[in-house]
Amino acid sequence: MPPLRAIVFDAYGTLFDVHSVIALCEQLCPGKGAALSQLWRAKQLEYTWQRSLMRRYEDFARITDAALRYACAALGLQIDEERRRKLMDAYRTLATFPEVGNALAELKAMKLRLAILSNGSPAMLRPLTSNAGLRGLIGAVISVDQRKIYKPSPAVYRLAVERLRAPKTAIGFVSSNCWDACGAKSFGFRTFWINRTGAPVDELGAAPDHVIGSLGELPALIRRPLS
Amino acid sequence: MPPLRAIVFDAYGTLFDVHSVIALCEQLCPGKGAALSQLWRAKQLEYTWQRSLMRRYEDFARITDAALRYACAALGLQIDEERRRKLMDAYRTLATFPEVGNALAELKAMKLRLAILSNGSPAMLRPLTSNAGLRGLIGAVISVDQRKIYKPSPAVYRLAVERLRAPKTAIGFVSSNCWDACGAKSFGFRTFWINRTGAPVDELGAAPDHVIGSLGELPALIRRPLS
Repeated sequence: MPPLRAIVFDAYGTLFDVHSVIALCEQLCPGKGAALSQLWRAKQLEYTWQRSLMRRYEDFARITDAALRYACAALGLQIDEERRRKLMDAYRTLATFPEVGNALAELKAMKLRLAILSNGSPAMLRPLTSNAGLRGLIGAVISVDQRKIYKPSPAVYRLAVERLRAPKTAIGFVSSNCWDACGAKSFGFRTFWINRTGAPVDELGAAPDHVIGSLGELPALIRRPLS
Repeated sequence: MPPLRAIVFDAYGTLFDVHSVIALCEQLCPGKGAALSQLWRAKQLEYTWQRSLMRRYEDFARITDAALRYACAALGLQIDEERRRKLMDAYRTLATFPEVGNALAELKAMKLRLAILSNGSPAMLRPLTSNAGLRGLIGAVISVDQRKIYKPSPAVYRLAVERLRAPKTAIGFVSSNCWDACGAKSFGFRTFWINRTGAPVDELGAAPDHVIGSLGELPALIRRPLS
């Protein structure tokens, strides 16, 4: 196994905590916040897969907005334009998980190149990384938007190989979405699934190489086989 | 708009009622049946989309079994081999919805060719159509298995065009899964969404042409523009 030269991170739920979106859902729709944020997220993902298969790509901002409209209609919630904009804006100002800053700094000190590979559109990702103060740590911020198809298509993971100019076996891929880690494993990356909720591994025929509880465990895990 | 020459039906949830599977889940896992059947179905669909995008096709029987194993693990249910086989077998012996027989007979009397186009593997679909006594009504039973990709890929809907040797504008497609009807619409079929639960239309940029409450409404709806 060649040593890793770069680590590529998923964005939503992996580096960035979507908890603030969930909290805002509850604030704007008291008593129905959890149902709204769950259905919103579920539809958002479904639409990425369905539109990819239908070959009707739309960018992630539009998909996220469409999923929100669907979720509100399904739950019988009347959400006006202003509140919908607030919910969409919350996606652009997510905080990172508390351990992210230190973990990334440690990885960077190990001479690893760091990048983001996300379903998010460039317009969604730009404010996210700069607000969170990650500009100095993360090099490339890669969006699926260039390829007009979503994860877990191999065409998406290939974007990171092309941008980082490193062989796939020298790239580590980190996601809190098990199916995303499986997709990256199937493509050929060395994969790390952050299992924050104690979920089972997805049965997709390509299990992640490593399972960790938080990003804080990553530097030690990566250092081990290199030393 | 040319007159319709053939009607193609989705199988699970459209012609065949999966209620018996839900009831068996409850019988085998008292108090957790609803959660099990919901997660099982959700994962079953997710795996079809994710594996299609990953280009790691497995047939629907295997995907259904994998989704069941995931759902049991996620819910902490210990299900032995025998009970798992019972649940899988339930998928092969589904009853049709009560209105199906009459509706199909009426459509056939209108000289329309009737077919099934399903994610199900041939081995799953064969007992289903013969048990339900649909052999005399349904001509072609078409499985995605020939193409090794799942709905809503256009490659799947194209199978029906090839098998029925009819232009897509002369084919009506009926599904109770809105995303499936949207996929068929995006491909070019005239589409009928059976909305049994009063759900909103999926926001996929290709809304179904017609929305009906049950299959019983279909013959009159199709007869109208032809008369």
